[in-house]
Amino acid sequence: MTIHPPAPALTIPSYADMLAAADRIAPHIRRTPVRVSDYLNRLTGADLFFKCEMFQEPGAFKLRGAANAVFGLSEAQASKGVATHSSGNHASCLSYAAMLRGIPCHVVMPRTAPQAKKDTVRRYGGVITECEPSTTSREATFAEVQAATGGDFVHPYNDPRVIAGQGTCSKELVEQTGGLDAVVAPIGGGGMISGACLTLATLAPTCKVIAAEPEQADDACRSFRAGRLIADDAPETVADGLKVPLKDLTWHFVRNHVSEIYTASEDEIVNAMKLIWKHLRVVAEPSSAVPLATILKNRNAFAGKRVGVILTGGNVDLDKLPWT
Amino acid sequence: MTIHPPAPALTIPSYADMLAAADRIAPHIRRTPVRVSDYLNRLTGADLFFKCEMFQEPGAFKLRGAANAVFGLSEAQASKGVATHSSGNHASCLSYAAMLRGIPCHVVMPRTAPQAKKDTVRRYGGVITECEPSTTSREATFAEVQAATGGDFVHPYNDPRVIAGQGTCSKELVEQTGGLDAVVAPIGGGGMISGACLTLATLAPTCKVIAAEPEQADDACRSFRAGRLIADDAPETVADGLKVPLKDLTWHFVRNHVSEIYTASEDEIVNAMKLIWKHLRVVAEPSSAVPLATILKNRNAFAGKRVGVILTGGNVDLDKLPWT
Repeated sequence: MTIHPPAPALTIPSYADMLAAADRIAPHIRRTPVRVSDYLNRLTGADLFFKCEMFQEPGAFKLRGAANAVFGLSEAQASKGVATHSSGNHASCLSYAAMLRGIPCHVVMPRTAPQAKKDTVRRYGGVITECEPSTTSREATFAEVQAATGGDFVHPYNDPRVIAGQGTCSKELVEQTGGLDAVVAPIGGGGMISGACLTLATLAPTCKVIAAEPEQADDACRSFRAGRLIADDAPETVADGLKVPLKDLTWHFVRNHVSEIYTASEDEIVNAMKLIWKHLRVVAEPSSAVPLATILKNRNAFAGKRVGVILTGGNVDLDKLPWT
Repeated sequence: MTIHPPAPALTIPSYADMLAAADRIAPHIRRTPVRVSDYLNRLTGADLFFKCEMFQEPGAFKLRGAANAVFGLSEAQASKGVATHSSGNHASCLSYAAMLRGIPCHVVMPRTAPQAKKDTVRRYGGVITECEPSTTSREATFAEVQAATGGDFVHPYNDPRVIAGQGTCSKELVEQTGGLDAVVAPIGGGGMISGACLTLATLAPTCKVIAAEPEQADDACRSFRAGRLIADDAPETVADGLKVPLKDLTWHFVRNHVSEIYTASEDEIVNAMKLIWKHLRVVAEPSSAVPLATILKNRNAFAGKRVGVILTGGNVDLDKLPWT
């Protein structure tokens, strides 16, 4: 019995895939607003345009890729649903998208994941199978769940459907701002950055794509400098959405289309997060603050430029803020 | 020597004044977005449309009225600037509007006001004169400042220019939502509620105007029930923007156009504030949360209705959140 399906081939999504994703997901996502702040513009010397992806119903851009995968399934596959392993925003966004289509969503999650994350997945109808907090247990448990359910595996980022979906965010950002010199987004697994590369390479080829990464989880930066994929071993950072490593598909986009990768320290990330809350008055999670942290740190690279900044999500524990 | 100018007559602003205000302030304010949340809709049984006034640059709707007053001044008066007494959002919004026009703004503020509030006024070029924290000292100090500077007094709410400016918020809300059964806004001095009455009585006469007030500062509710203006003596509430009493002009609108005034306890306000941060992912100050608190408490009055909720501001001390 084959319990693992064959690994998907390295299918690079195209600009047309992104356009198709935009049409497919339009009824299910929000065209999130762009925020500006005179204060942050003065502080950085740049014209900053903040794309508020925390305003997606489940609170993160990951709904775009999840919805593209879920609503692109054939009826036959849809009846078996989708499956993933994640303890973060991908799990809740995939559950939410599956709920919108009325199909099952199976999520393998470490039993040690925060109760709030489990509650959110269950609120959206996701069915959780708990595993031990190890890669071995996760993979074995996921294989069992998939064999039992036939759910289509939607990887959090190393999936062309997901990347095409995330690319729709940069499309909106360009449309809403009327043109940009650069887009800065956080990089963890690289799904959002890959989507930005995919879209901007065609839609706005003079617009640079710049990735922002925590110093303490800087596998993308080290890979970028080395010209080959380097994985971190269990990094620890307040920007918990960015701990995961690049994979082959996202590395393809990073290597070929990203102009620069800047990093920021934990203190710089928390400081930028507080500036966003105070001056943009949106609830942004630490991962979302890494771009502003790197812009403040590399002022000369951005001064005088029109810069899009993707605020990726806003799911935080309000009782445990990183500055209190 | 006359140190007090004559008290302004009770000039009721008209719908045409509101329309003129909308044109006058359009270049200086933001058309703030409207947020919705499937979660909060399920929780309340209503269709809620949250108008995000914390997204004005100085973080509060009060920029609308302040900008209408500042940009409506003659050149001769403008050269002498404006003056007010306030330790809250009106002071920073009036300073910001005056800075945009390049005219002086004089603010009388108790020396005991939080340093952060003084810093914000000064950041926008406002000139602060400190007084003792008593009404006597404030009035005497303000009279001196006004006599010395000739600054035009812009009252935080009991001023027809201010009310006409605040009315532009409900105009946008109706345009952005395509029609509502009710608008709920917090009530303190009554400037925002009066603006809503002014606009909706003509633009959407079937749309009810409902005021939401802290139980611990319920002068408007008691006045409404009694049919006459009753002032509180120094109320204390977490919704610090709502401690001030109604005045003759705002009482006119409340008495004639408000359908209902609901109140909420301190715990209910803090609980609603946390729901807004968590599910709308915007930074709202306690005053902004009073409407949702009253909607949750009076579910039957709102279920099945399309309800606009004005989130009035987002200036909070992130180091002293009311739930920590």
